[in-house]
Amino acid sequence: MQRTDFRAMPCSIARTLAVLGEPWTPLILRDIVFGLTKFDELQRDLGVATNILADRLSTLVEHGLLTREPYRERPVRYRYELTDKGADAVPVLLALMRWGDRWAADPAGPPVTVVHHTCGAPAEPAMTCSGCGEPLDLAGIGARRGPGAQRGPGAYLLPGWLSAPGRPELREAMPPPRITSAGRFPPGR
Amino acid sequence: MQRTDFRAMPCSIARTLAVLGEPWTPLILRDIVFGLTKFDELQRDLGVATNILADRLSTLVEHGLLTREPYRERPVRYRYELTDKGADAVPVLLALMRWGDRWAADPAGPPVTVVHHTCGAPAEPAMTCSGCGEPLDLAGIGARRGPGAQRGPGAYLLPGWLSAPGRPELREAMPPPRITSAGRFPPGR
Repeated sequence: MQRTDFRAMPCSIARTLAVLGEPWTPLILRDIVFGLTKFDELQRDLGVATNILADRLSTLVEHGLLTREPYRERPVRYRYELTDKGADAVPVLLALMRWGDRWAADPAGPPVTVVHHTCGAPAEPAMTCSGCGEPLDLAGIGARRGPGAQRGPGAYLLPGWLSAPGRPELREAMPPPRITSAGRFPPGR
Repeated sequence: MQRTDFRAMPCSIARTLAVLGEPWTPLILRDIVFGLTKFDELQRDLGVATNILADRLSTLVEHGLLTREPYRERPVRYRYELTDKGADAVPVLLALMRWGDRWAADPAGPPVTVVHHTCGAPAEPAMTCSGCGEPLDLAGIGARRGPGAQRGPGAYLLPGWLSAPGRPELREAMPPPRITSAGRFPPGR
């Protein structure tokens, strides 16, 4: 089966998926974030096939999210640690966790609580606007062409983007779509 | 090839991946978030094979993230819209986008800018603590057993979790791991 090369798409979601979107990869990163560093520890914790684990770790090293160092010789054994690029994927893991906590947890509740050491509180991760600090949700956001915008499949360049009538500051921005079950409709649609 | 059932894992990341982790699914959601609703529009924008697109849309409808309604008869054609459960995946998309913007964009810059209608600013999405509003990054977070914690593969129940000496409020919480390239080390390690 021919695989689509998501790296070729002018889309930051697609390019992230090209690195982090393989099966098991977010779970491997989860374990490394939470302190497992050795191949055997990761394999034992996840119960993943060794060839898949080796492949995913190689991809992450190759893309610069992890470093790999031997911690034992004869037979050689490796330890994996996060680089800044790898550590910067923590918000992706938190976003995945947050959705699962809300929509896929057992009746008893989420299996894990995130603790924020800085404030000491159990924290629900929230995706917020770096400008005003308010949560970013579907009704509040739009997208406009960025400096690296290109045409082509998967390029985000939808016809509607180029017309946001009446609000010049949102020119080239998309209106948010309708939500079906919430009764919310964005103004103007 | 036998696929692991991530839904069976007591982990909210794994369970989210069971729904959103298939190839193409985040890009399909991206397009629906940004206003494409019809099968043919999605297929044209993404260049994805129709059988894959149909399969992914069915999964999203089945799991309650999308509704599907006919908008034309003979031949019947369908329109897809987000439910609240689907709209709540927006932070996942923003987290993926943010990482790609930082680490995988072309030299010209990110292809898309997120606009926050509420404050009118181009907003970099930030994953923050719902308690104190500060960004959640690797050095600042730990995990503790939640109400639905279970034992088993992929269960997050690592031995280290049960011992956080000297800080009773962090009992059962993990210390954050070392980052290799940043020179940052969490206190106490």
